[in-house]
Amino acid sequence: MEQRNYLQIPGPTNVPDRILKALSKPLVNHRGEQFKEIMVKSIEGLKEIFRTDNDILIFPSSGSGVLESSIVNLFSPGDTLLISSNGVFSERVALISETYGINVIRITKEWGQAIKPEDVRKELEKDTEKKIKAVCLPQNETTSAITNDIEGISRVIKERDHPALFLVDVISSLASLPLETDNWGIDVAIGASQKGLMLPPGMGIVTVSKKAWEAVENSKLPKWYWDYKAVKSKMESYQFPYTPPTSLFFGLVEAIDMIREEGLENIWDRHNQLARAVRAATVAMGLKIFSEKGYESDTVTAIVMPEGIDFPAFSKVIRTNYGVVLGGGLQKLSGKIFRIGHMGSISKTDIYAIMGAVEMSLYELGYAVELGTAAKAVSGVFLK
Amino acid sequence: MEQRNYLQIPGPTNVPDRILKALSKPLVNHRGEQFKEIMVKSIEGLKEIFRTDNDILIFPSSGSGVLESSIVNLFSPGDTLLISSNGVFSERVALISETYGINVIRITKEWGQAIKPEDVRKELEKDTEKKIKAVCLPQNETTSAITNDIEGISRVIKERDHPALFLVDVISSLASLPLETDNWGIDVAIGASQKGLMLPPGMGIVTVSKKAWEAVENSKLPKWYWDYKAVKSKMESYQFPYTPPTSLFFGLVEAIDMIREEGLENIWDRHNQLARAVRAATVAMGLKIFSEKGYESDTVTAIVMPEGIDFPAFSKVIRTNYGVVLGGGLQKLSGKIFRIGHMGSISKTDIYAIMGAVEMSLYELGYAVELGTAAKAVSGVFLK
Repeated sequence: MEQRNYLQIPGPTNVPDRILKALSKPLVNHRGEQFKEIMVKSIEGLKEIFRTDNDILIFPSSGSGVLESSIVNLFSPGDTLLISSNGVFSERVALISETYGINVIRITKEWGQAIKPEDVRKELEKDTEKKIKAVCLPQNETTSAITNDIEGISRVIKERDHPALFLVDVISSLASLPLETDNWGIDVAIGASQKGLMLPPGMGIVTVSKKAWEAVENSKLPKWYWDYKAVKSKMESYQFPYTPPTSLFFGLVEAIDMIREEGLENIWDRHNQLARAVRAATVAMGLKIFSEKGYESDTVTAIVMPEGIDFPAFSKVIRTNYGVVLGGGLQKLSGKIFRIGHMGSISKTDIYAIMGAVEMSLYELGYAVELGTAAKAVSGVFLK
Repeated sequence: MEQRNYLQIPGPTNVPDRILKALSKPLVNHRGEQFKEIMVKSIEGLKEIFRTDNDILIFPSSGSGVLESSIVNLFSPGDTLLISSNGVFSERVALISETYGINVIRITKEWGQAIKPEDVRKELEKDTEKKIKAVCLPQNETTSAITNDIEGISRVIKERDHPALFLVDVISSLASLPLETDNWGIDVAIGASQKGLMLPPGMGIVTVSKKAWEAVENSKLPKWYWDYKAVKSKMESYQFPYTPPTSLFFGLVEAIDMIREEGLENIWDRHNQLARAVRAATVAMGLKIFSEKGYESDTVTAIVMPEGIDFPAFSKVIRTNYGVVLGGGLQKLSGKIFRIGHMGSISKTDIYAIMGAVEMSLYELGYAVELGTAAKAVSGVFLK
């Protein structure tokens, strides 16, 4: 039997039927009235989701594309940025910056450790000449399934009265973890379609503050496709400098409706509850959570591969027998951890089933666990 | 009654039901076996459609994105390129190049005039020091609905034994007009999803020849998202440096099947026959074709707005009464022409109806035409 797929990688996430239907609507003229209406709704909805009054800019791109956009639009060769390096995606921003001739001060941590407000404070204190033009880090680092304390870090930047811009990659936390773009003083928040927004990949989204626009004016890096000023000026008349991903906009309007129906804060709570259930089941089965205690992500959980079981075998059993697709470890974590994505369109029943599938698959591969352990732990969290 | 929409702008085009259905398939892991299969099929199919053995690279982007990609990957500041300038999209490549510090020699023509092999020959002859690193132009310039003679121009480059690379924007001609990437010595052919491939926008595609790869090695422009070497190295193991537009790949596999079923050369013939019918009806109705005689595009027709009728009024009548969405003139052609896109998923019956709607709408607005003229001309072409 062809069964439903549980796509539990840390994004792209499962796209709900309502959105899949919207995606298959016949196309419209991206310069016409009908599309203008879609754009108005999209931008209004995104401002609610990002909690911002800043400008929203949209790109036909992956999340990494809009990460690059933030670097080439705000900075110049020779500028200095303070960038976290504790996983593939934080390090990616450092690499992109260096590609464009920018000096990078890395806050390097073991993968699995979070970036703390103290770490940022230390670096800003050292920067007596106020050379650092921006502090850049992800809210959620999917590589190691940790969540950085963005609110705390924002307070450090404010307290030190440092002029640095605050750039936050919210790709794997948007519409899943609490985010207050304006209250936390985030100058550029960088998101994408394929995670909490429950859409397929192909749409990158950034928010741009007044202070960030000033940096844009001073930036000397060349850009055309990513040019914030060109995109803003076109978007003001509900157009784009080039063809936008129209089908994804159909889906976005539907996603915004769904998010409003549930309520953004309820969505944050749901992600927290489901993540606690995943962690409870993990610990109950005698498995080890990879990420630093207190900083475990509520959108993805990284679990240490138990001794004697290898990831490809485990991944195959759980996919073949239970239709659950899990993420492996990336780069140096390959084979050492597995990752369960639990963001976007996901329910208590899904989590109950997924953790059961993890247990049964490990059991089949010889891991010693009493059947029913995961279910007991998961339901314990739900019914407490 | 909500009626079927005839989206007759020069792209995005109407997406057939089979592809719309494919687009709404549940997502898969972009690092898994299932996606590998999809990629193998996609690349095989695209090689057939481009008629090339060169490498195929795919980007989550609009067509303009991959235009930019070809510039930043192959050249360095100070290089000189020979670029056509006879419409928005040819001029766009010149603008992008200048953004990156590249010298541009423009072949400037009135919008509506084609770039001829003689035009290119003249410039290459002047270039005694062989400074020109590449000749860049679109096969089809949608702004003015003309098709440049790419085969003829390729012969000129070969005959002159000039080392210039040959970069051709095939965005609005791919899978519609005859294209022989390898036989015509095209080093980089640049395409996108939303025209002849009958998909929504969001996927950019380039082909890269051996000679182009040598240029990539020498390029000094910084790039990360567009980096051909990084994308190639990942695609060789059926992955991407970042999340690919997975849903569009589902649609692409379906589009490739449809193109194989009809036969690529039959598709070229269909576009030619339908375009001839559009032009015959235009002339029969006493309207004037905007584009240079002999170079009229077979994917889009530009028609001079008849005296006394303005585009917004015409566009509204034909959309409201007949569900046909037409393109207007861009930039300096705004209000002066209208454009009918006839590429991708489009049949004889569609063309018959669309030209009838053009006739009836103009008639309603006071244009003097005998009803039935368009139909007679269109059917005359089909039944000859």
